[in-house]
Amino acid sequence: MKFFKLAITVLMITSLSVALNASDKKVYTWKLAQSWGTNFPIFGDAPKNMAERVKKMSNGRLIIKIDSSNKHKSAFGVFDFVKSGRYEMAHTASYYWKGKDMNTLFFTTMPFGMIAQEQNAWFYYGGGMELMQEVYGKYGMLSFPGGNTGNQMGGWFRKEMKTVDDFKGLKMRIPGFAGEVLSKLGASVVNIAPGELYTALDRGTIDALEWVGPSLDLMMGFHKVAPFYYTGWHEPATELQFLVNEKAFAELPADLQEILKQAMKSSAYDMLSQSTHESAMNLAKIKKDFPNVKIKTFSKEIMAKLKEENNKLLVEMSNKDPMAKKIIDSQREYMKKIRAWTKISDYAYLKSDFE
Amino acid sequence: MKFFKLAITVLMITSLSVALNASDKKVYTWKLAQSWGTNFPIFGDAPKNMAERVKKMSNGRLIIKIDSSNKHKSAFGVFDFVKSGRYEMAHTASYYWKGKDMNTLFFTTMPFGMIAQEQNAWFYYGGGMELMQEVYGKYGMLSFPGGNTGNQMGGWFRKEMKTVDDFKGLKMRIPGFAGEVLSKLGASVVNIAPGELYTALDRGTIDALEWVGPSLDLMMGFHKVAPFYYTGWHEPATELQFLVNEKAFAELPADLQEILKQAMKSSAYDMLSQSTHESAMNLAKIKKDFPNVKIKTFSKEIMAKLKEENNKLLVEMSNKDPMAKKIIDSQREYMKKIRAWTKISDYAYLKSDFE
Repeated sequence: MKFFKLAITVLMITSLSVALNASDKKVYTWKLAQSWGTNFPIFGDAPKNMAERVKKMSNGRLIIKIDSSNKHKSAFGVFDFVKSGRYEMAHTASYYWKGKDMNTLFFTTMPFGMIAQEQNAWFYYGGGMELMQEVYGKYGMLSFPGGNTGNQMGGWFRKEMKTVDDFKGLKMRIPGFAGEVLSKLGASVVNIAPGELYTALDRGTIDALEWVGPSLDLMMGFHKVAPFYYTGWHEPATELQFLVNEKAFAELPADLQEILKQAMKSSAYDMLSQSTHESAMNLAKIKKDFPNVKIKTFSKEIMAKLKEENNKLLVEMSNKDPMAKKIIDSQREYMKKIRAWTKISDYAYLKSDFE
Repeated sequence: MKFFKLAITVLMITSLSVALNASDKKVYTWKLAQSWGTNFPIFGDAPKNMAERVKKMSNGRLIIKIDSSNKHKSAFGVFDFVKSGRYEMAHTASYYWKGKDMNTLFFTTMPFGMIAQEQNAWFYYGGGMELMQEVYGKYGMLSFPGGNTGNQMGGWFRKEMKTVDDFKGLKMRIPGFAGEVLSKLGASVVNIAPGELYTALDRGTIDALEWVGPSLDLMMGFHKVAPFYYTGWHEPATELQFLVNEKAFAELPADLQEILKQAMKSSAYDMLSQSTHESAMNLAKIKKDFPNVKIKTFSKEIMAKLKEENNKLLVEMSNKDPMAKKIIDSQREYMKKIRAWTKISDYAYLKSDFE
């Protein structure tokens, strides 16, 4: 009976070992819905990089499958997909959800707001992440920075914009808060599907549009029909966003939670580096191949008027909602300090190079 | 004998299972030598964050123990520590190793070189990482960005610097390449241990020094004795560095390799956000509590002279070494394109805010 006892003991140890092994090896398969189409450059690279890094780091224990808007057919439905748990994750932009909750607006970028390096400091060290979570927590979601485009260009215009009056009656595609600001100057703000933008601009259905910047504008062809390319004011640091279903996240073991967080973070930061790189390369291409493009900056008069209307809208929002006030105040206070630093660091340095 | 056979079979299965388990569960314990003292802020947070993230993501399978220079007693010995394998990793600055290999100089920051966002684009998307690896590969090491201080201040001066002639005979602590540039203007460049800097400045043993910027200067007390605080030119984007012993890295399983890489990357990027935050907070403190501090920018004449001498030194280096030429050319070509983008994006935007 000695062998029998031994065999039983060994069997028990084996079972325990196999059980432990099984729990370690459990594979979690998640789905991510992105607001972008298949193979959309830069924006789409952020979730792709994230998913690849997660797979490698987890040794295949967390697999994230990406559905583009071509598949799920609802670029502006991904908030609800994650809220309901139909998808565990999304990659999108926070300001798309203003209609659902006005306070989501503040976590992408704000006209006359922070530039990317300032905004990253606010998110990670200045209380931005906590405010963002306060907004998204209500919907059972976690929200993380998802990659920055850098400073966006003010848009492509068929005609030169010399005075504030030139905006009266201007038909422009410019979404979100910036559109509201422009409409205060008398512009007629319209929304047109991306696929129809070039034709609309070419035929004069619209007089101007904003898209992103050299990184992504060139492939749209706008430079052929609207040669005045204005520098930006309305999206100084457009940060995309990962949304994660809170329950799904809580079910992951602690190591996979951390793997997911770090992969989102490194991919988001990388997107800013990639955007900066692509913008530089494409701007060089524009200068070389499309000398008809005229890069302009709005006059002081125009900028002052835009800022004035923007400030009025911020006051209105602050008065409407205490959480909006809390976020606007946080950004305003933080910007005072961080902009003073930017002024004597990168700005002073660049100024000595340019002037 | 039936039980005997069963027991043997079970034993074999168990051994196999335990063996598999053991290989999965093997704990790697690494040592990292940092060039900084214990609890040195910001610089020291980057390796600390990295090690914590690695531990969490690997579920304790990769443990990185950090030795500060208080422990290993050799801030400038960590290159050799990693090369020899005495330490698997280091956290340091590339330009410290100029005496061992002049081409290590280029991967920290260069006078009149790229700002942080530009340099990150160069490292990750513009060929910088590959050039850095070409340099470090010769020593059996891998090299990764280790965190950026952002634009460093030009230093603390006891007297106002009005003309190029004011640099003649100036006794200044400023290390590295920038020191060589300043000596061309007639400055007497000295090196003094950090712990003795305040006294040297107070007693007039030196007339000026550069340290980092508001993020780390305030705790040194320089503002009390040298109130002229100049904006920077010599370290526009100081990137620290993780060094990894190549053999040790190759012995890690693929998942731990990726965990290490992503933890280094997210911690490095985070350091720039943290530096930006701390600089802004401390600059606000300086303005509030130390109104005697006068923030100045060197005149156009001084900046032009510094740039001229800097360019001459770069030409000398290019002529001396083909690899130096390759790196200098890469940075120069890249900077032309990326600076043109910075000019019409963040710079144009900031200018409209300041002027």
